[in-house]
Amino acid sequence: MKERVFNFNPGPSALPLEVLKEAREELLNYRSTGMSVLEISHRSKEFDEIMAQAVARVKSLMGLTDDYHVVFMTGGASSQFFYAPMNLIREGETADYINTGTWSTKAIAEARILGKSVNVAASSEDENFTYIPKEFNFSPNPAYVHITSNNTIKGTQYHSFPDTRGAPIAADMSSDILSRVFDPAPFGLIYAGAQKNIGPAGVTLVIIRDDLAKRSPETLPTMLRYSTYVAKNSLFNTPPAFAIYFANLVFKWIESAGGVAAVEKVNNEKARLLYQAIDQSGFYRGTAREDSRSKMNVTFRLPTEELEAKFIEDAAGEGMGGLKGHRSVGGLRASLYNAVGPDAVRALVSFMGEFERRHG
Amino acid sequence: MKERVFNFNPGPSALPLEVLKEAREELLNYRSTGMSVLEISHRSKEFDEIMAQAVARVKSLMGLTDDYHVVFMTGGASSQFFYAPMNLIREGETADYINTGTWSTKAIAEARILGKSVNVAASSEDENFTYIPKEFNFSPNPAYVHITSNNTIKGTQYHSFPDTRGAPIAADMSSDILSRVFDPAPFGLIYAGAQKNIGPAGVTLVIIRDDLAKRSPETLPTMLRYSTYVAKNSLFNTPPAFAIYFANLVFKWIESAGGVAAVEKVNNEKARLLYQAIDQSGFYRGTAREDSRSKMNVTFRLPTEELEAKFIEDAAGEGMGGLKGHRSVGGLRASLYNAVGPDAVRALVSFMGEFERRHG
Repeated sequence: MKERVFNFNPGPSALPLEVLKEAREELLNYRSTGMSVLEISHRSKEFDEIMAQAVARVKSLMGLTDDYHVVFMTGGASSQFFYAPMNLIREGETADYINTGTWSTKAIAEARILGKSVNVAASSEDENFTYIPKEFNFSPNPAYVHITSNNTIKGTQYHSFPDTRGAPIAADMSSDILSRVFDPAPFGLIYAGAQKNIGPAGVTLVIIRDDLAKRSPETLPTMLRYSTYVAKNSLFNTPPAFAIYFANLVFKWIESAGGVAAVEKVNNEKARLLYQAIDQSGFYRGTAREDSRSKMNVTFRLPTEELEAKFIEDAAGEGMGGLKGHRSVGGLRASLYNAVGPDAVRALVSFMGEFERRHG
Repeated sequence: MKERVFNFNPGPSALPLEVLKEAREELLNYRSTGMSVLEISHRSKEFDEIMAQAVARVKSLMGLTDDYHVVFMTGGASSQFFYAPMNLIREGETADYINTGTWSTKAIAEARILGKSVNVAASSEDENFTYIPKEFNFSPNPAYVHITSNNTIKGTQYHSFPDTRGAPIAADMSSDILSRVFDPAPFGLIYAGAQKNIGPAGVTLVIIRDDLAKRSPETLPTMLRYSTYVAKNSLFNTPPAFAIYFANLVFKWIESAGGVAAVEKVNNEKARLLYQAIDQSGFYRGTAREDSRSKMNVTFRLPTEELEAKFIEDAAGEGMGGLKGHRSVGGLRASLYNAVGPDAVRALVSFMGEFERRHG
């Protein structure tokens, strides 16, 4: 096996090689402390600096105003599925959810387990979640409107966000955060498990607008309140320090690459290349509706399942990993997160051409 | 500054140098996958193997029968403060808590926030938590009896566990897990934040007896139920994969050192050396009652706060870090977790002698 493969995993997924090297370089002695970053105190000035940089970089990269708090939590996006309704839906209120697949469905289920009032304002379940709805049946004054901005499993993505008429959007952006520029103003809550565009698994980036952070009821356990993370700057207890350290290096890497706009340009080109290869062939077939296609997770099928299995096997032999589609969809999926370079996509497209010539 | 200092931090704290080197060695290419361990899927056969090894090693190191489940969670011990009462105290039941300091006090507070019935069966608050109580006022049939086996801040530790007459003990063992041999049979729940004796911050080791794991109510959000972690082998969602990977290497390191009994022997000798240096001097003064002294966190004072500040500064100059006591206690604290070698303790004792000669 090669020293490094092209990694198309859906998450945990490819990380920037430069960042991996930087972390390796200083793993035994962080900035002349004589300790590993894995061993320093979360109350040390070194870690204070890491945290301050990480927060400042997220704010600057995403263009967040001072209305927004940036905190680092644990438990993944799956835990946000209950944090959001627990903290943000007050007595007598309803929250609207748009159902675009597996993750939205789970988010709705967790809100309902809590006994909260949930209105499914739109769903694409009627066509197996292959598209992003464009018409919504919002409730009069929802606590928030929850969306999944990119759907890793079904390979769909919002290309514009719904007009919620002033209701704050709560968005699971686990799989496309920091991949494209957008206006954060309509958002009250943005959360993302780190293991796609941010860093290693084990930390969740949460961005919450001040008015929503104030909703946390004091009847919740301390660590189940957003307000605790805001008040304590994510340091009520020991945070997942290494994951935050690594995320900060990734944020720096995005900065060096020219910021989110520059990264988006590359992402657009990567997706264009791959979808073009699919569309120009009669052999490969995209599974998501064209107007809803994800630039992060490109899902496609081959004529038969046997060919799909062969494709995955042969691709692995050529040093391309993580291409198997989610078991609920089948087929192939190439995840093109920020750290997947255009070289990886070119290699894949070239392999697809060859594979089609051999088996088409 | 030296390449590596002697690290007496209370947590995050020293990690075995061999393990850090092993992690560094394979950081860019995990076992010929061509991916970093930070980039592999949590559903890959490589990660399956890491998880299976980590679980098997904890069972074997701690002598756990098949009655016990070993799972990896997030949110630190601070989250277990609400997980335990939320999952384990059923309608009409009371849980007993023994209050031995800051962490026990927090655990009690979280159970009360949930509106649970809590009986404080004993407390050493009357003497500023400088000792471990030996008499308990247990309720008739408690859901569990909660203890903090080692008190990082106050420097105390249980040397034998209370006889709870059949009620399961629920123990926060964050700061002394895997440091000594004990019989797990009376325990229904054992939890430990990793960042002392297990690995980097970001994962919580939870050991739960099967009958207690069955108590989780289905009215809780999925990820707030112990039963979910048990049923899904800690893989309901993406786990903190790197922290688990690193913990598994630390478990292997303990095995290679001869297991917990061998590690305990070294820990006993380290603590003996340091307490002897304190007791033989009229200059240093231990803060915990002798029969309750912790072998993990040795807390002591100097004649004046000025001398304490000078001690910390001079020790840092000699390559010894993390010696400052917790702000609520003051003074000095040397944390002697498994990865702190006898050489570190000898260096500290020798420095203490010199410092006393200069300033005593």
